[in-house]
Amino acid sequence: MTGGLLWPGEHRAGELFSDEAVVVAMVRVEEAWLGAVTGAGHDLSGLVGPADLPRLARDAEGGGNPVIPLVKLLRKRAGPAVAEALHTGLTSQDVLDTAIVLNLVAAIARIKADLSVQIGEVAYLAERHRATRMAGRTLTQHAIPITFGLKAAGWLHGLLDARDILDGAAELPIQIGGAAGSLAAPTVLAGSPERALALVAAAAADLGLPVRAPWHTTRAPLTRAADAFVTCTDAWGKIANDVLLGSRPELGELSEPAVEGRGGSSAMPQKQNPVLSVLIRRAALTAPQLAATLHLAAAEAVDERPDGSWHVEWPTLRTLARRTVVAASQTAELLAGLQVDAERMAATLAAARPGIDAERAKMGDDGPYLGATDQIIDGALERAQGKPC
Amino acid sequence: MTGGLLWPGEHRAGELFSDEAVVVAMVRVEEAWLGAVTGAGHDLSGLVGPADLPRLARDAEGGGNPVIPLVKLLRKRAGPAVAEALHTGLTSQDVLDTAIVLNLVAAIARIKADLSVQIGEVAYLAERHRATRMAGRTLTQHAIPITFGLKAAGWLHGLLDARDILDGAAELPIQIGGAAGSLAAPTVLAGSPERALALVAAAAADLGLPVRAPWHTTRAPLTRAADAFVTCTDAWGKIANDVLLGSRPELGELSEPAVEGRGGSSAMPQKQNPVLSVLIRRAALTAPQLAATLHLAAAEAVDERPDGSWHVEWPTLRTLARRTVVAASQTAELLAGLQVDAERMAATLAAARPGIDAERAKMGDDGPYLGATDQIIDGALERAQGKPC
Amino acid sequence: MTGGLLWPGEHRAGELFSDEAVVVAMVRVEEAWLGAVTGAGHDLSGLVGPADLPRLARDAEGGGNPVIPLVKLLRKRAGPAVAEALHTGLTSQDVLDTAIVLNLVAAIARIKADLSVQIGEVAYLAERHRATRMAGRTLTQHAIPITFGLKAAGWLHGLLDARDILDGAAELPIQIGGAAGSLAAPTVLAGSPERALALVAAAAADLGLPVRAPWHTTRAPLTRAADAFVTCTDAWGKIANDVLLGSRPELGELSEPAVEGRGGSSAMPQKQNPVLSVLIRRAALTAPQLAATLHLAAAEAVDERPDGSWHVEWPTLRTLARRTVVAASQTAELLAGLQVDAERMAATLAAARPGIDAERAKMGDDGPYLGATDQIIDGALERAQGKPC
Amino acid sequence: MTGGLLWPGEHRAGELFSDEAVVVAMVRVEEAWLGAVTGAGHDLSGLVGPADLPRLARDAEGGGNPVIPLVKLLRKRAGPAVAEALHTGLTSQDVLDTAIVLNLVAAIARIKADLSVQIGEVAYLAERHRATRMAGRTLTQHAIPITFGLKAAGWLHGLLDARDILDGAAELPIQIGGAAGSLAAPTVLAGSPERALALVAAAAADLGLPVRAPWHTTRAPLTRAADAFVTCTDAWGKIANDVLLGSRPELGELSEPAVEGRGGSSAMPQKQNPVLSVLIRRAALTAPQLAATLHLAAAEAVDERPDGSWHVEWPTLRTLARRTVVAASQTAELLAGLQVDAERMAATLAAARPGIDAERAKMGDDGPYLGATDQIIDGALERAQGKPC
Repeated sequence: MTGGLLWPGEHRAGELFSDEAVVVAMVRVEEAWLGAVTGAGHDLSGLVGPADLPRLARDAEGGGNPVIPLVKLLRKRAGPAVAEALHTGLTSQDVLDTAIVLNLVAAIARIKADLSVQIGEVAYLAERHRATRMAGRTLTQHAIPITFGLKAAGWLHGLLDARDILDGAAELPIQIGGAAGSLAAPTVLAGSPERALALVAAAAADLGLPVRAPWHTTRAPLTRAADAFVTCTDAWGKIANDVLLGSRPELGELSEPAVEGRGGSSAMPQKQNPVLSVLIRRAALTAPQLAATLHLAAAEAVDERPDGSWHVEWPTLRTLARRTVVAASQTAELLAGLQVDAERMAATLAAARPGIDAERAKMGDDGPYLGATDQIIDGALERAQGKPC
Repeated sequence: MTGGLLWPGEHRAGELFSDEAVVVAMVRVEEAWLGAVTGAGHDLSGLVGPADLPRLARDAEGGGNPVIPLVKLLRKRAGPAVAEALHTGLTSQDVLDTAIVLNLVAAIARIKADLSVQIGEVAYLAERHRATRMAGRTLTQHAIPITFGLKAAGWLHGLLDARDILDGAAELPIQIGGAAGSLAAPTVLAGSPERALALVAAAAADLGLPVRAPWHTTRAPLTRAADAFVTCTDAWGKIANDVLLGSRPELGELSEPAVEGRGGSSAMPQKQNPVLSVLIRRAALTAPQLAATLHLAAAEAVDERPDGSWHVEWPTLRTLARRTVVAASQTAELLAGLQVDAERMAATLAAARPGIDAERAKMGDDGPYLGATDQIIDGALERAQGKPC
Repeated sequence: MTGGLLWPGEHRAGELFSDEAVVVAMVRVEEAWLGAVTGAGHDLSGLVGPADLPRLARDAEGGGNPVIPLVKLLRKRAGPAVAEALHTGLTSQDVLDTAIVLNLVAAIARIKADLSVQIGEVAYLAERHRATRMAGRTLTQHAIPITFGLKAAGWLHGLLDARDILDGAAELPIQIGGAAGSLAAPTVLAGSPERALALVAAAAADLGLPVRAPWHTTRAPLTRAADAFVTCTDAWGKIANDVLLGSRPELGELSEPAVEGRGGSSAMPQKQNPVLSVLIRRAALTAPQLAATLHLAAAEAVDERPDGSWHVEWPTLRTLARRTVVAASQTAELLAGLQVDAERMAATLAAARPGIDAERAKMGDDGPYLGATDQIIDGALERAQGKPC
Repeated sequence: MTGGLLWPGEHRAGELFSDEAVVVAMVRVEEAWLGAVTGAGHDLSGLVGPADLPRLARDAEGGGNPVIPLVKLLRKRAGPAVAEALHTGLTSQDVLDTAIVLNLVAAIARIKADLSVQIGEVAYLAERHRATRMAGRTLTQHAIPITFGLKAAGWLHGLLDARDILDGAAELPIQIGGAAGSLAAPTVLAGSPERALALVAAAAADLGLPVRAPWHTTRAPLTRAADAFVTCTDAWGKIANDVLLGSRPELGELSEPAVEGRGGSSAMPQKQNPVLSVLIRRAALTAPQLAATLHLAAAEAVDERPDGSWHVEWPTLRTLARRTVVAASQTAELLAGLQVDAERMAATLAAARPGIDAERAKMGDDGPYLGATDQIIDGALERAQGKPC
């Protein structure tokens, strides 16, 4: 997948949801349907390869989607015995939607694995720095003393919210509806509606996807996944923003893991830039507008297949999914190596006195003024353990 | 609530989430907290009224939020016995976030009630028009014959998805964390962290809200609600777009309920415009970008209270919630009175032949070519009945 | 205009673009057209007032826009002599679009006045702090020494870009096209196309607006204005973000003008929050998505009047314009009173050594390493003086 | 440039703004600077090639941008004589911003050429169909009779607005500011600020770009270009939406140019889909949110180089520019071959009577009721001729 030059870190997503991966997934869908219809296994995977991509991409314009040239190619290469049955009963949207679902499912698996690592790391930080005192800040100004563990507990809740919302969006279904979502051709093919539905179920089982009624113009499964991705980048963006601030030399409380060859500048030899946080924050600034585009597409899904808003979804989902996968990996690495400078935190807190103790004084307290910090941290840690990720 | 001149139909939202409703809710939060702290009931509801709104709005700029002038006013008017305890332990964000939650909960209740009506109406349409034949359309062109009941079953799944996602977002929690989310002042006030948490629980119970650890900078509860609102307007937008097309005189298949005084033009006496659908579609075109703004705000929630992104949320959530409430009501009315012209559908289908039968001919079928339409409709109806709304 | 409670500072926009101002402007448009058609002056301004707003807002839903009930009301109250000629030849969109243009023109005038003040203030800062040394920062880290004057010169170019782009968008035209943009009814009314065009010109002259062919579905005049507003909030947002960072106690280089009653907290007596910058940044975070909505509306302007995307524009333009007016005023005030702590800047720079001098050392320089700072500042000042605002 | 499988038609953009094109442009920038500094021509173009892209993309993560590994590679391969001078005085942002500008300039040239074709084609349609009667439609319903030439005149104004706004955005400047925008290192290199500015001017002349003071954090040049791109896709989206509606079999007034192999379906042999319009509309639905992201990035451009919002711009500008180039080409082709069915228009108009004549009847007219259609068309044609594109 080229294009990564302008999205540094994109190699972390590898070939996930690349043009090639989409073609592979489309072939898998055709294969699963062919298997369901013929009752026999077929291996179509060798019929098209990377060398076909430029032509498929170019020919996709003719019918407005890549399925049409792909099916033509597959039929030509699969030989006459298979050619007739191949794709019969399906419409382009069945194949492309299901292929996109397969790629989204793979992306979600990657993200969940990284979320799990992140949750472990942040739980460790919350526990380890339960009592590490630092200045709490609101509206840029010193507020009252807190601990870094409390801040980490907030990060942890953000990650757990993201995990829960992603879990709720993960059951993406197969799409098979035929030309206009009625399973008309599959029913002719199968001999009855019941048998057509059984074909769908068989293909879904082969692909490891749940069944759902045709959803050609009912796009909540996709927008829900998109919203979950953005909820992830929100949580990571919050963390990255905190790290970026903490990395400023005037604060000096947090720093990224030191890695050979990272953080340098083309002009200034002394620079050690918080690159991971910069790149995570970048993702968080772009994701919301991509999800908005998907919602617009969902709302504009007129007729039995819409005139443009379907086409909007493919690259938007791809970009959103890949960027989320990249940011997931970068955030896991950031958190695993995050450096916390407790001494600097203590020094800043000391220098912030007595102003930062004004509320405490008003309340007539002379303790550490940490409130329910321990209980809040414990609650976050318990929530983290409550559900294996 | 003025401002409705430029959002026709806004009166349907009434005073929900108006400035006055927000003030009332903020006073309720102060009241609940005061009751928890003092152990005695207090009725603060008469202390501020509509006449105070202009001054509160103006004075909100001083501290950047309306809580500060409100508390000042309440303390002045509540008298010295109450003034000291009032608001003590809270921070502005506690009061405003919880007040916004109360308004969101009220909005969600309104939307759920209308969704329930819509689901009933669309279920009726799906059943009633199970066999009403019409042209299926993809990419603007005739595809294969379908029934209007099948189309309605698609609408129904969209509404049911919206309902399920809204249900998942409905448990919005109380926000009480004190100055920096550690419950420091409440703990001093209560004597121990456990007792502070008990105060929070008591206030939450009084307000009818679930408890959650302070979420000043963990904003997934709000973005989840926003995403659910947009999922609703997506589903309604899809329906409105279908009605707008079906209402075109060249199609003439669908029409809005005829209501005296609706659909007229200032210039053309013959006009009968599909006004409800126009206004519903309008909402669907604006909602996604509002939700995107809320996600951006969530990602930028730096420190223990952020420097602008918190402030972004208030009017954005208000606008999104009110517009969703209005569109919910308009969609319920649209669906309850939707006129379906089965004869016109049949005539268009007849005129579309033989082109529209090309796939059927290719499949060698000579039946009605409706596939699993009945099963798909039944599945949607069963889903609609599976869960009381 | 209520609603300001959740957008602190909104009172600065006063009644600009309020429901009442829109009604006043619509009446002005009817008046101008009536004057052009009848050749006699008419004063309709007293016929409707604030008390009519709730009913107009409610009745706007019937036809989908507020012009229809307004015309009905005007005709009823203007008396039979005027009633017939009133609005004849116009369509709702003519009246509402032109009324919106009048409000936008007023907003632009306000913004230009504040931009002019801002430019003067920033020019002063650039000159005054031409040699005030401070640490330059890139990617959050110390880069090389700069001066605050150089930073201010960058701000100045941002303001000048915004001014130039706003100037290019300011010539918003009258909208008069009749029912479908052909001036059909006005031509009948006037007796010939030429005379109809003369009526349009007369009405435009009365309203102080340039003429343009009907642009019911050619919306670049509005998107251009919206883009200019966002370019303003971008420039102000950049400044506000720099001030927010500079106001952090750990940096302490910049602070907002101290004003009695501003910047306080409801919980923490010591707090002095940079409220203006917070509120300006807030505007900058919401404006881009509003402009995006207007572009979407422009792209969806189907037929001779579109089915929803026209309706999207009204409240979106209002919100965007009012927020830009408010942010303009807040930024002018911020800049007029901005405190620059040159000693703190010098101390931070000293502490950043020798790291911050690494590039200079690599270049083998032992001077102040300020490059073309003076020339860049001079260039910005000259650009600021080149064009009276 | 792969990735085109999911954006059918992307091959029309060729290698414009591809990873390879960006590398070529970055090398050109280094070359121009090297030439200015050394006073001698250098050809670096053969030093890096497509084979280096994967490694450059991967190594871009280390410093957060692709310039750092590129410079390393160039220095290694250029040999010691050149290595020292190469890139000296520049910062990564200088190289990448200017390379992006070069790609944007190339994109704008492509778009302007296609706009010019489009303007010619639409001018022809407006003239040719000056008197081709059809039903005018507002809010989906028949309004009054118009001509197709009038509609085309509206399209023409949209294209001319886009052209004018694009012209205003086309003068994208060189970016050379050194580490923090003060030209510090270039000044040391050159010996004086004046000579440093002369180096910038020489490099700019070599690259064919205008000079401007360093604009590292003053991003209006980029947002202005982005807004212009969106103004283009707005104008094309409006046209595509009209064609999509006119292509519906129930209207049948407009159809896309018939091209062998275009518009087919994978399931339905009879289908002739308006593919170009579908793909153009798709672009119009995604562009506004991309421009919004760029404005957000501009507003968040803190310090002398921001911590993420700079990085947001690169892929966003690339995607927006490429999609605009593709849509420009598709729209030119659509318009050049657009089929107008005047008989069908006449038939629909006849069938719409007498309703569609209601306003005419009310006005007491018995003519063709075309108002100033001729004058409006003439005005549009004159505007089109007024300025060579």
